[in-house]
Amino acid sequence: MSGDIRSLDYSPQGSAAIVLLSGGLDSATCLAIARKEGYATHALSFRYGQRHEYELERAERLAKTFAVASHRIVDINLAQFGGSALTDHRLAVPKSDTVEGVGTEIPITYVPARNTVFLSLALAFAEVVGSRDIFIGVNALDYSGYPDCRGEYIAAFEAMANLATKSAVQGETVKIHTPLLHLSKAEIISLGLGLGIDYSMTLSCYDPGPGGIACGRCDACLLRKKGFALNGIVE
Amino acid sequence: MSGDIRSLDYSPQGSAAIVLLSGGLDSATCLAIARKEGYATHALSFRYGQRHEYELERAERLAKTFAVASHRIVDINLAQFGGSALTDHRLAVPKSDTVEGVGTEIPITYVPARNTVFLSLALAFAEVVGSRDIFIGVNALDYSGYPDCRGEYIAAFEAMANLATKSAVQGETVKIHTPLLHLSKAEIISLGLGLGIDYSMTLSCYDPGPGGIACGRCDACLLRKKGFALNGIVE
Repeated sequence: MSGDIRSLDYSPQGSAAIVLLSGGLDSATCLAIARKEGYATHALSFRYGQRHEYELERAERLAKTFAVASHRIVDINLAQFGGSALTDHRLAVPKSDTVEGVGTEIPITYVPARNTVFLSLALAFAEVVGSRDIFIGVNALDYSGYPDCRGEYIAAFEAMANLATKSAVQGETVKIHTPLLHLSKAEIISLGLGLGIDYSMTLSCYDPGPGGIACGRCDACLLRKKGFALNGIVE
Repeated sequence: MSGDIRSLDYSPQGSAAIVLLSGGLDSATCLAIARKEGYATHALSFRYGQRHEYELERAERLAKTFAVASHRIVDINLAQFGGSALTDHRLAVPKSDTVEGVGTEIPITYVPARNTVFLSLALAFAEVVGSRDIFIGVNALDYSGYPDCRGEYIAAFEAMANLATKSAVQGETVKIHTPLLHLSKAEIISLGLGLGIDYSMTLSCYDPGPGGIACGRCDACLLRKKGFALNGIVE
């Protein structure tokens, strides 16, 4: 798998957009899309007590590769609340040998109100940098059933955001961009490859081993593997 | 000014509620109301880079006095975004000699998306402790014109929250309680005195001096002073 980021026409940069950047496959694609659309991108990542904190190294590499206007890693310890296998090491991340093992129930890797917290901080950041555009790589097809990845949730957040800020009161509306919302994982990967993304820079795994090696058996790994396989690629 | 917190009938404690507790006059009243209504209160405070961090000592004292079920102080550095006189020491907090000096424009003490960030974290905490009730002491009468203190904003946040979480998907609705929303500062103080609150424990000032001494001239101090004066009290 390879990609040539230089094939992207990134100039000139237009208005500012905030891009939530976890370091995974989806957010990398989202960043590439925002850059392709001509935004000056301000990437925002979170050190929230996640067991897969390795993803932040990937986020930093992606931010550099995509020549973002700025990249911030915000500390917000969601592990102090607990309630998720992603932030509580006493809870095991569910594993399976095949993608059919990915359940239809909301799994224990769900982090309470995570996207609401992340989008709220993105909203604060957007207002300060004068941006009206926030990109988030949620998708509601090949996903783990998280409630805060659905379109109706995003629409409600946007409606709230447009009442929440000084900018909103002054008539500036903010838009939450979800370009991946209705794409399958295979379609996301196909789109990203077309944009020249080197996906080997990304980390999707919920439970990586030392050095950030993907486990290959968590929901995120299985959905990723399936997406690449449907593109005729074995990672 | 005095109060006897023991005059409150606090037993038995019912279901869990999250109470946003800044250490100021409004949130203290809000906490007293939640306790009076029989909730087991989980207080949530934020160290967000505010110049009036002294308020957190007051929050701790209030939490103890009100015998909360738990009290957490969450670190979330909003100062890294800047854009507010409350988090950026290079910006001066507006001062005036009289309450007529409190402007009608949204002032520079506005912190971008602050209540959205705080309520989002309250939502996360609520889901983990199994609470459906969040109390916030916003009021839209004697206030600084902050957009995220208005009723329509709170309603939109509640609508979003009820799409955001696993609990919501499972049919459990969350309610954002704003018992002070339509009260004047004088009415809030009158209510709180009736509940036995010792307001000398609270700190409203945006720009306290060493030891947490209120400046007496910022919007928060002036509105507070007017509220007490209307109750025939000189603090």
